Amino acid sequence: MGKIADRYFGLDSNSIVEKEYDPAHSLESESIFTLSNEFMGVRGYFEEGGDMPSLRGTYLNGVYEVQPYKPESGYRGFVKRTHFMVTAADMLDTQLTLEGEALNLSRCQYGGFLRTLKLESGLFTRSFLWKTERAGDVEVRFERLLSMDRPGLLAQRITLCPLTKAALGSVMLSINGNVIHQATGKCQWTELEGTTDDLVLRTETTDISVRYRLLTRCPGKQTRKRGYRSISDRYELSLKRAEETVIERLVRVDIARTGEGFPEVADAPDFETLLKENQAHWAKFWHDGDVEIDGDPENQQGVRYCLFQLHSAYRGLHPSDNIGAKGLTGEAYNGHAFWDTETYCLPFYLLNDPNAAKALLLYRYHTLPQALERARQLDLQGACYPIATLDGTEACTLWQHSSLQMQPSTAVAYAIQIYSEQTGDKVFLAQEGAEMLCQIARYLLSRGGWSKDGFGFYGVMGPDEFHMMVDNDFYTNFMGKKALCYAYQTINSLAAKQRDVLKQKLSLRDDEPETWRQAADKMILLRGANGLFEQHTGYFSLPHTDIQAIPIDEFPLYEHWSYDRIYRTDMLKQPDVLMAMFLYPGDFTRQEKQANYEYYEPRCIHESSLSPSVHAILAGELGRRSEAATFFGFATRLDLDNYNRNTKEGLHLSSVAAAWVTIVEGFGGLRFHGGRIYLSPWLPKAWERLRFRLRVGTALLLVTVDQQEVTLVCEGGKAELTLYGNAVSVESYPVTAARR
Amino acid sequence: MGKIADRYFGLDSNSIVEKEYDPAHSLESESIFTLSNEFMGVRGYFEEGGDMPSLRGTYLNGVYEVQPYKPESGYRGFVKRTHFMVTAADMLDTQLTLEGEALNLSRCQYGGFLRTLKLESGLFTRSFLWKTERAGDVEVRFERLLSMDRPGLLAQRITLCPLTKAALGSVMLSINGNVIHQATGKCQWTELEGTTDDLVLRTETTDISVRYRLLTRCPGKQTRKRGYRSISDRYELSLKRAEETVIERLVRVDIARTGEGFPEVADAPDFETLLKENQAHWAKFWHDGDVEIDGDPENQQGVRYCLFQLHSAYRGLHPSDNIGAKGLTGEAYNGHAFWDTETYCLPFYLLNDPNAAKALLLYRYHTLPQALERARQLDLQGACYPIATLDGTEACTLWQHSSLQMQPSTAVAYAIQIYSEQTGDKVFLAQEGAEMLCQIARYLLSRGGWSKDGFGFYGVMGPDEFHMMVDNDFYTNFMGKKALCYAYQTINSLAAKQRDVLKQKLSLRDDEPETWRQAADKMILLRGANGLFEQHTGYFSLPHTDIQAIPIDEFPLYEHWSYDRIYRTDMLKQPDVLMAMFLYPGDFTRQEKQANYEYYEPRCIHESSLSPSVHAILAGELGRRSEAATFFGFATRLDLDNYNRNTKEGLHLSSVAAAWVTIVEGFGGLRFHGGRIYLSPWLPKAWERLRFRLRVGTALLLVTVDQQEVTLVCEGGKAELTLYGNAVSVESYPVTAARR
Repeated sequence: MGKIADRYFGLDSNSIVEKEYDPAHSLESESIFTLSNEFMGVRGYFEEGGDMPSLRGTYLNGVYEVQPYKPESGYRGFVKRTHFMVTAADMLDTQLTLEGEALNLSRCQYGGFLRTLKLESGLFTRSFLWKTERAGDVEVRFERLLSMDRPGLLAQRITLCPLTKAALGSVMLSINGNVIHQATGKCQWTELEGTTDDLVLRTETTDISVRYRLLTRCPGKQTRKRGYRSISDRYELSLKRAEETVIERLVRVDIARTGEGFPEVADAPDFETLLKENQAHWAKFWHDGDVEIDGDPENQQGVRYCLFQLHSAYRGLHPSDNIGAKGLTGEAYNGHAFWDTETYCLPFYLLNDPNAAKALLLYRYHTLPQALERARQLDLQGACYPIATLDGTEACTLWQHSSLQMQPSTAVAYAIQIYSEQTGDKVFLAQEGAEMLCQIARYLLSRGGWSKDGFGFYGVMGPDEFHMMVDNDFYTNFMGKKALCYAYQTINSLAAKQRDVLKQKLSLRDDEPETWRQAADKMILLRGANGLFEQHTGYFSLPHTDIQAIPIDEFPLYEHWSYDRIYRTDMLKQPDVLMAMFLYPGDFTRQEKQANYEYYEPRCIHESSLSPSVHAILAGELGRRSEAATFFGFATRLDLDNYNRNTKEGLHLSSVAAAWVTIVEGFGGLRFHGGRIYLSPWLPKAWERLRFRLRVGTALLLVTVDQQEVTLVCEGGKAELTLYGNAVSVESYPVTAARR
Repeated sequence: MGKIADRYFGLDSNSIVEKEYDPAHSLESESIFTLSNEFMGVRGYFEEGGDMPSLRGTYLNGVYEVQPYKPESGYRGFVKRTHFMVTAADMLDTQLTLEGEALNLSRCQYGGFLRTLKLESGLFTRSFLWKTERAGDVEVRFERLLSMDRPGLLAQRITLCPLTKAALGSVMLSINGNVIHQATGKCQWTELEGTTDDLVLRTETTDISVRYRLLTRCPGKQTRKRGYRSISDRYELSLKRAEETVIERLVRVDIARTGEGFPEVADAPDFETLLKENQAHWAKFWHDGDVEIDGDPENQQGVRYCLFQLHSAYRGLHPSDNIGAKGLTGEAYNGHAFWDTETYCLPFYLLNDPNAAKALLLYRYHTLPQALERARQLDLQGACYPIATLDGTEACTLWQHSSLQMQPSTAVAYAIQIYSEQTGDKVFLAQEGAEMLCQIARYLLSRGGWSKDGFGFYGVMGPDEFHMMVDNDFYTNFMGKKALCYAYQTINSLAAKQRDVLKQKLSLRDDEPETWRQAADKMILLRGANGLFEQHTGYFSLPHTDIQAIPIDEFPLYEHWSYDRIYRTDMLKQPDVLMAMFLYPGDFTRQEKQANYEYYEPRCIHESSLSPSVHAILAGELGRRSEAATFFGFATRLDLDNYNRNTKEGLHLSSVAAAWVTIVEGFGGLRFHGGRIYLSPWLPKAWERLRFRLRVGTALLLVTVDQQEVTLVCEGGKAELTLYGNAVSVESYPVTAARR
């Protein structure tokens, strides 16, 4: 595995703690302490700046720029327009001066540094003792939060308390639109005329206007200043010894797209009100979704941090929102969402917050026109969903990914199926679901081909991106088969009237669904001996790479190996066959799972951070519990312990989701298919107790596992499920079974 | 085939003739009338310019610029520096004015237009009657030539004869360095200080200086003018009625690379002298290498034109010269040479001008350091020859070609083998040849891999570029096997002392050649039933495309189909299995040739212009004579009749070579292996007689084929060969056999 923890933050089950600030970890800390509320995200940077490495990143969901792209060859189907999330105005810019000395932790003396993020409220605090030259010691505390219930609001509170003597000074609280998007090296904002309290900025290419309203509260004389793309309030400070002076800032952000106006709003709650609202919000969240791990404080902290960041990143507030690979925590990956949304994030929402799960599916429905257009660009029919996107158009400029990877479209079909089966939401399925399924089926049928062996997909790149352009990739064919089959079933399950409406809307010929069924029936799945599947045509005849013999300093391979060298052996980036088994566990026998796990696991180098989850879950199911625990190793702390050494760029949001999946599916032994929950919990030896919650219909199912027994109990309804293969019905009275 | 002639030029067995000039064919005519002499090339443009489409292209062999290239992803092994042939100064710029009227065929009245290129001398002539407004009718004749024996010399002669009355006027003869290279949109030249007679220009990045010396002769007052990057002679003209005034220009071009000076030269032969020298040069060429086709004037003209252009493009003058895909006839393909040099051009030289063949091989030897460096960039050992190059470095910026195509390196090994076997040049083989073979073998061994099925190459693109990234491509594996085998044999055939020298120079381990032999022995060649070979792993399981059903307006597919759509069926661009059989005909049985021809021919769309040659030759051998004649159809007239509709960009030099190969191998039934010539001639029904020449050792072998018999006779020595399977010895007395 070759992954080693960089342990920097303190252990605490309900917060993230940084003591004794080290500038060498500055960027990682900024990422870890990011606050977001789906609407916006703000990295945990120092308000007053400094000379440390810093990415003063603020991001607004769905606020982006488009960019023409000139591929190196003008072939048809190549992406000729891409887009990226912009860096929004810095709303926390603070300049503090006491007795002529400006606060700057790179240059001033200070002690008692403490930076914390409280998971029960989303309160971010940074405090220290500023040892000034002329004003003596001053206690300084910066607090900030993003309102969960009023997503446009960012609040900041600064508390100053001189311990030695009274002090004179000033504070300048600014919103600064002169921010540089690092990847383009440019500021994309144009200032529009606003009112006295507002800074209004517009994007270059997408005509998105953002209004920032600045409200500040502080004792002393206030002066409002305007600058180019900025607005500031300056206060003269007169601090008394041993007395706290509190400065508050509230920023309200509103977004208006082409043709939209800004809402009229007047409420300006104070910091304490917003904090209390956030506490209530998070209390409900933890009540419904907490995962408790007794006996393993590292994973306890890790999984709570993951849950906190996932709910912060997305809960289905706005139809144009999705979950970017880095959420709103950095500009890497340009804010793009990938197919991990459906395969890794969606199960969490489906079993915790089904409305958010539905919202993720509606995002794909709203961007169906873009997927139809993309298919046309590729000479195909139906809907081809993008591998990377913000606005639904394909943003990935590498043709080998954007033209050869079919997994975004099959992932949407998968998501529709698990959502519909689990929730029983027939209205969605009959309307948006069926329409998407038909268009995906059309895409699949036109992208694939019939050969003497049946139907398959040729010239594709599966999730295992170490085999770039192959035929009959197992994952692609299998997921294609499931999607075609489900589209066929769905069409046939509709009431006649619904079907007619759909047929008319899509100009669906009567014989089309039958062509999907035939392709699904005859889908080529390359079977070897004893239940082993061949990953793609010719895979078993590839040269073998002994992955243990690759020197550790050659990772990541993309940076150290010649590009094409990666593609010509049996080494896997992530295991396509096992991925299919992970997503459709009910479709494979235990013997098949075992044969394929044993064959592919030693060939996989996990250069995708999601790969260990799949292995952990399968290993657990196959009773290979110590292997499962090894693969689980860093699932919850990938970013906290900077295993991939790139946390500085932002958090790995799909790994954050995978942490929950790994625990609940890996140890909880959770599977769900056909609308039913299956549980087979077990525990690593070191864990005393694992407790997690699942939303099952109206009920909240509480699962408690210790080394002796499993206890199930429901709040607000009842759940029918299968525990260790036995059907059980759980209501408000606990059901107990011996642990296996 | 879908190729249709655009017949524009007049039929004539010894020249190219354009009557009744049509500006719509202007660019094609410029390409067709290109003169070159390996040192330089000048397109057939109008000296005086005009408003017609024109590419005033002048090119100097090996004069180029390098250019940094930023690939869209910075993966290792991607080309990060490319290069291109520049447009040299225009040496023919002529401004002619009579009685105040400037010559411009787009605006003036004229009649009797005739543009000709004489193949027996390389004399280019353009003549017409200029119907001036004030000077009456004036006969105008422009002539030009490039000296074959003194390659730095370009000569021009202008003859003016007023038929109506005397006329006053002026002529300005310039060398103009203010030329734009169309692809970059820039002029790359910087002027250096020269003498009165010289214009000296230097390239931007490669520090190549070019001295142009202008010498003019004309009755009347001369004024020399200098301009920025230009030099001109202006003459006042006083033309007498019915009397010819002759204006001559001689330009001498010299090239000095970094650290070199220009030679001191003083000779200035007149036009007539140079013309006589050229006539003698070409008389010798035609004596030794003419191909005569009686009964088919179109192919007679076509093949002579091809021979003329091939000898003009290359005859081994300078070690840094090679044969660009467009020769020196246009800027398309950036002047780059490809592996066609070894596979299509080399056989012509080998059997007509063995010294030129050796020079082509020495080019690869001189660029061996660049090939070693390229292999290192790809994490490989030995020498990886570039897919496209001028200076030996890889210039192709598309990674899928520059990283996946192994055919340049195996083509060099093939060339060394056929050269060495055919000429018996053991000195070359023991020195340069063996060194290249060892380095190529090292490359092959490191690029390939062992699997359970044997040794093979994975993730490659063969000549059939419609299957981009495949395993065990038949051509690649077969040519790799031959190269490894020949490298092993060559090392073992060396005298002990030679071998020791080589081992020391290359740090060749004792066991290395054995590893090559093992790989060659166990090379995977995918065999189907009845002698059929599978083009690559999984090819037989690909969906079938009915190529006859593709609408004609979808060609070329690269422009009309989504890029990846091309790669996922059994449709071929050119046939890899048949290509291997074409290059090593002795390695396959007739049954194998027949089975593979029958299988692959209907799957091939010939989007490579070389593909029909291979089919014509194999069809001929297999007795499918009418098919052979169909494929032969446009071999000799690809550019003359603009079959590919892109002759305007320049001539297809490797197709020009393929024309000779097709006739001599296809109809002459020529094969050569192991140093022996095999002939099995036949004729299409319409041909009365075919006569061609081959250089066999010191002898010139004349082969005459008519519908009844074959006659062989030698000049200057004797030839041992095999005719229709029978050994014959040919000397100065004709040997005759009945035609089969």
